[in-house]
Amino acid sequence: MYTIGIDVGGTNLKAGLVNEAFEIVDAKKMPLVWESPEKFAGDLCALATALVEKNGISRDQVQYIGMGVPGVVDVNKGTIVKTVNIPIRNMPVAEMIQRSWDIPVYLGNDADCAALGEFYHFANKDIESLILVTLGTGVGTGIILNGKILRGFNGCAGEGGHMVIVSGGEQCTCGRRGCWERYASASGLIRLTRIAMEQNRSSAMWHVAEGRLEQVDGRTAFTAAREGDDAAKEVVDQYLTYLAEGITNLVNLLQPEVVCIGGGVSNEADEALLFPLQKKVEALRYDKDADRHTLLAKAHLGNDAGIIGAALLGRE
Amino acid sequence: MYTIGIDVGGTNLKAGLVNEAFEIVDAKKMPLVWESPEKFAGDLCALATALVEKNGISRDQVQYIGMGVPGVVDVNKGTIVKTVNIPIRNMPVAEMIQRSWDIPVYLGNDADCAALGEFYHFANKDIESLILVTLGTGVGTGIILNGKILRGFNGCAGEGGHMVIVSGGEQCTCGRRGCWERYASASGLIRLTRIAMEQNRSSAMWHVAEGRLEQVDGRTAFTAAREGDDAAKEVVDQYLTYLAEGITNLVNLLQPEVVCIGGGVSNEADEALLFPLQKKVEALRYDKDADRHTLLAKAHLGNDAGIIGAALLGRE
Repeated sequence: MYTIGIDVGGTNLKAGLVNEAFEIVDAKKMPLVWESPEKFAGDLCALATALVEKNGISRDQVQYIGMGVPGVVDVNKGTIVKTVNIPIRNMPVAEMIQRSWDIPVYLGNDADCAALGEFYHFANKDIESLILVTLGTGVGTGIILNGKILRGFNGCAGEGGHMVIVSGGEQCTCGRRGCWERYASASGLIRLTRIAMEQNRSSAMWHVAEGRLEQVDGRTAFTAAREGDDAAKEVVDQYLTYLAEGITNLVNLLQPEVVCIGGGVSNEADEALLFPLQKKVEALRYDKDADRHTLLAKAHLGNDAGIIGAALLGRE
Repeated sequence: MYTIGIDVGGTNLKAGLVNEAFEIVDAKKMPLVWESPEKFAGDLCALATALVEKNGISRDQVQYIGMGVPGVVDVNKGTIVKTVNIPIRNMPVAEMIQRSWDIPVYLGNDADCAALGEFYHFANKDIESLILVTLGTGVGTGIILNGKILRGFNGCAGEGGHMVIVSGGEQCTCGRRGCWERYASASGLIRLTRIAMEQNRSSAMWHVAEGRLEQVDGRTAFTAAREGDDAAKEVVDQYLTYLAEGITNLVNLLQPEVVCIGGGVSNEADEALLFPLQKKVEALRYDKDADRHTLLAKAHLGNDAGIIGAALLGRE
């Protein structure tokens, strides 16, 4: 038997055929071109149909379709309540898909799906709780407790990126000031890098960024730091301090077995990112003499986490 | 049938006989005088024995003993791992009590027990999740999700007071800087009050505190604000902003049905504390257009929460 996992992104729709070992057998993607709810649901069905046909699988062999959405879903009603970058409001997407695919359709938030994917990957190690922290444009968090996605009573839980760590700090898109994602996202790192460059005209960061602030990305400071540049080392250290601040908050509050770091920034070498981050969290956490501590690790599945997690929604 | 709930405090041991409606039928307390683990366990047994004898109840009518401890407990082993203000380390207290009381003994953290007490009080309203925030010397948080205490995989979860909201801010006893409890506890409020008094020699807060900074307590600023003092109003507003910052973090992350405020500071009138706090959290929370929102309320049980919650540990 198989399941189909769909990862709805701001620019692409991706669907994967997933086997019972939670592996992607085959995947297809298409650009998301928004016209109407009907077109959107039709595209999802077409992707699923193309997948089974290409792989010579009958629809009977697909147990259900799972779908991760960048926004708020109503799990019970099978509706997308709202999305962040797509103009969807209260769309009964499960029912619309079921008009052509008569199987269960499960919905989840995309960060939650990615966390679920990472959780099952770690599940061989017999854990019950995991938080995935994804470092991208923002900071996404997906929380798995007792083997289940923590959704909150209204389906809106898990917004760890919008936990204030600098009261009165940088303005966030959510309306608050000083949210974790203003400091620990790739965007936050880029901001810290640019500030340091303007204060250090001779820093190697200028060379890495080809002399242009617009060229700065999440790798600029890490690259220059590796070359021995002091200002860049300071940027990296400051960034890791902010990252550790939020992670330690999550650990003190929830004590999950694993905190995973994913997203573009997490691709830096362990010596530059994971190891110093572990040291900072170890020094800060409240439960210093507990007999067991949260494992801080890198996420394993990369971009596949969304598809695999969506394909796991029905197993919860 | 009855249960016995014991609330171990830094200065007193309190025990209550609790009926099936979760009401305290009778309670006894004694000063905590630390000599040895044996004396400590003996005192607990003596309190329980005195309670049943005074109320003409046989031991057969007591289902179990529950016990809330200010520190870390090992629920499965029945041991107190460590406590904050009492020199207890790895004490097999359940087994020691069972030498004279041969019934189940359940252990819990004191903040968790208080949250459990408040949760059962609200349970008539059919909720599944609640966070109790206790504003005292520190900020204690007890988290109930899916009707159960959130303990974390190592028993150390729920340290919301040690969530940093001001990165690099006030030094905390836990080693971090800028923990929520440095700002939102009664101690934090007293600090803010004293700073404002030193900057405003003509403030009515001086009158309320009888001209002495040492006289300042958690009520000083609230009292002067009620009298119309501008500096005091600013202190109260700043304090409520910090309190709202942490509460909004908890809401964005966990979306519980209820957040309760307990502890000394929560005794202020709703107009001065609860209502403006609700407004601040409403303005800050991430899920502004969700169809249901976390209810922010005052705790109901006061000092009884610890005993009632401990007496409920066996029902989880």
